[in-house]
Amino acid sequence: MAKRIFSGIQPSGIIHIGNYLGAIKQWVELQNNPPTGEDEAIFCIVDLHAITVRQNPEQLRKNTLSAAAWYIACGINPQKSDIFIQSTRPEHTELAWILSCYTQIGELARMTQYKEKTQKLQNDLGDTGFIVKAAPSAGLLTYPTLMAADILLYQTTTVPVGEDQVQHVELTRDIAKRFNNLYGQTFTIPDYSTKISGKRIMALDDPSKKMSKSAASEYNYMALSDSPEKIRQKIRKAVTDSGTQVKYEKDQPAISNLLNIHSEISGKEVAELEDEFSSKNYGEFKEALADTIISHLAPIQSKYNSLMQSPTELEKILKAGSEKVASTAQKTLSDVKTKIGLLNL
Amino acid sequence: MAKRIFSGIQPSGIIHIGNYLGAIKQWVELQNNPPTGEDEAIFCIVDLHAITVRQNPEQLRKNTLSAAAWYIACGINPQKSDIFIQSTRPEHTELAWILSCYTQIGELARMTQYKEKTQKLQNDLGDTGFIVKAAPSAGLLTYPTLMAADILLYQTTTVPVGEDQVQHVELTRDIAKRFNNLYGQTFTIPDYSTKISGKRIMALDDPSKKMSKSAASEYNYMALSDSPEKIRQKIRKAVTDSGTQVKYEKDQPAISNLLNIHSEISGKEVAELEDEFSSKNYGEFKEALADTIISHLAPIQSKYNSLMQSPTELEKILKAGSEKVASTAQKTLSDVKTKIGLLNL
Repeated sequence: MAKRIFSGIQPSGIIHIGNYLGAIKQWVELQNNPPTGEDEAIFCIVDLHAITVRQNPEQLRKNTLSAAAWYIACGINPQKSDIFIQSTRPEHTELAWILSCYTQIGELARMTQYKEKTQKLQNDLGDTGFIVKAAPSAGLLTYPTLMAADILLYQTTTVPVGEDQVQHVELTRDIAKRFNNLYGQTFTIPDYSTKISGKRIMALDDPSKKMSKSAASEYNYMALSDSPEKIRQKIRKAVTDSGTQVKYEKDQPAISNLLNIHSEISGKEVAELEDEFSSKNYGEFKEALADTIISHLAPIQSKYNSLMQSPTELEKILKAGSEKVASTAQKTLSDVKTKIGLLNL
Repeated sequence: MAKRIFSGIQPSGIIHIGNYLGAIKQWVELQNNPPTGEDEAIFCIVDLHAITVRQNPEQLRKNTLSAAAWYIACGINPQKSDIFIQSTRPEHTELAWILSCYTQIGELARMTQYKEKTQKLQNDLGDTGFIVKAAPSAGLLTYPTLMAADILLYQTTTVPVGEDQVQHVELTRDIAKRFNNLYGQTFTIPDYSTKISGKRIMALDDPSKKMSKSAASEYNYMALSDSPEKIRQKIRKAVTDSGTQVKYEKDQPAISNLLNIHSEISGKEVAELEDEFSSKNYGEFKEALADTIISHLAPIQSKYNSLMQSPTELEKILKAGSEKVASTAQKTLSDVKTKIGLLNL
């Protein structure tokens, strides 16, 4: 069966090679060689989700364009896939409102992400350095109903997600089933997929944890935007293990992670790399890895820069993306409206 | 200063003479003779609010058209005022979502109407006759953010409301001020008005309470749709006081209420009516009152019936109304989006 994959992209400023190798690169391959020949992928930059916590407006606008530019620079082709900004399609909030009338408050309040974000808000340090007890907004609570609308509007079959989002997709499935039970077949019940063919990329400064842009130190991650100098510096500073051999071993998580990164980028098997570097030390391997990353990212960065230099062009691409998905979104929404008794004028 | 009045109309099926004499009739007069010459009124049939509790789809669709038909039949002129259906303008849910990110959960959970409706849900009798503990939906909680969006989208100056809605308008004011403080002047801060020039119409079966369509007995209210026979029957059955004189007295609430109804409909002063009926008994006054109501409602009912007989025509009027308010709604939403950092593509 043909898959329709929906992926929500947070406009959060930084995209790192963990995101790239763990997801974007796979999507590009899927886009270029769809298994059934009919698979399609939708990339939605979810700016309306971002505002559930306070944003700097200029930064948010820039991050939204920047996220799109990175995806396109990495190979997402707006001719083959759909890439657009959530807030440019009103059907998302229209359906979210309707779904919020079929979602219990208790279901939302039980979400782990809501509990964690609420906790975090209540411990945040304000500008003054005092602990500010910020009250959670209603948007933070109803976030999953908007996410459900994002997914269900497009009759999505598959949602690639991190472990932290599984609960939200499960709630989406519950809401969709509930609606279908009440009004007859309306929504495709989406599956989630946490399995992505790319290897899990760990933090450069702590290979026991996933690479994360929200880490305290920038030496945790390699951003797609890092300059060649920064890339070299970060790889040099990356922690290594107690051994000296460039070998993939369970008890050598640091060098194994670096080998994974090299393998994913160069396309060489890990075993091949082990052979190649069998007589080299960590330092020599790291220099080679830095070179590989720098030369792989160079054309992506160059494409990104050229997209960001003509924001009007980029906006045109995103507007076209929004228009491309319009008919599917409108069809689902119109069906929902008719079924619950709203007039479709 | 010119006023812009926003009134949300629940598509709840029944409109009674309390609604008509206490509000609609005044709005028609205001529409036809605007005090400043520039005042305008917006009538929005709030179907998206209605779905915060479960609705029968066919009934909701019919009630939505029916509410519009009654307002127009009563004299709301779609050429002079704006009348449209909430769900046909996507800006309402778009702004509601945004405002929900600037509204605290605690503010919503404190609303009396939310607490009452939640309480009611938890005590409702299901079809089985057993008490069903229904869980409140998220929409029931966030209802006031949608209401705030309804009001603020149109830079409303005045919201005519019943006492039970004052709290929601106060929250709307708080949200609007909060947003203006953060981002500069964006929303007009609306005033509410519980004072309407019409007199308060009390229940026919209990003059100590306001006339209400949700009363247990239909002898509580006089629906605009009541047949001449039903009108006469309801007026005959209306409770009276221990006295015999057709006189307006504080300790004679029942006859005073009937005098008010007559006065509002006939346009005669209460004193004038007291003179006219000074030698008549309650029964004779009631017959005269029934005649007055029947003949006043006849042309309204006839207009209503003709509107409901051509739903396509009525839908056309409502579609035109939706298009008429579009530019104001879009202008406000676009300003909001730009200010918070969303792209306006």
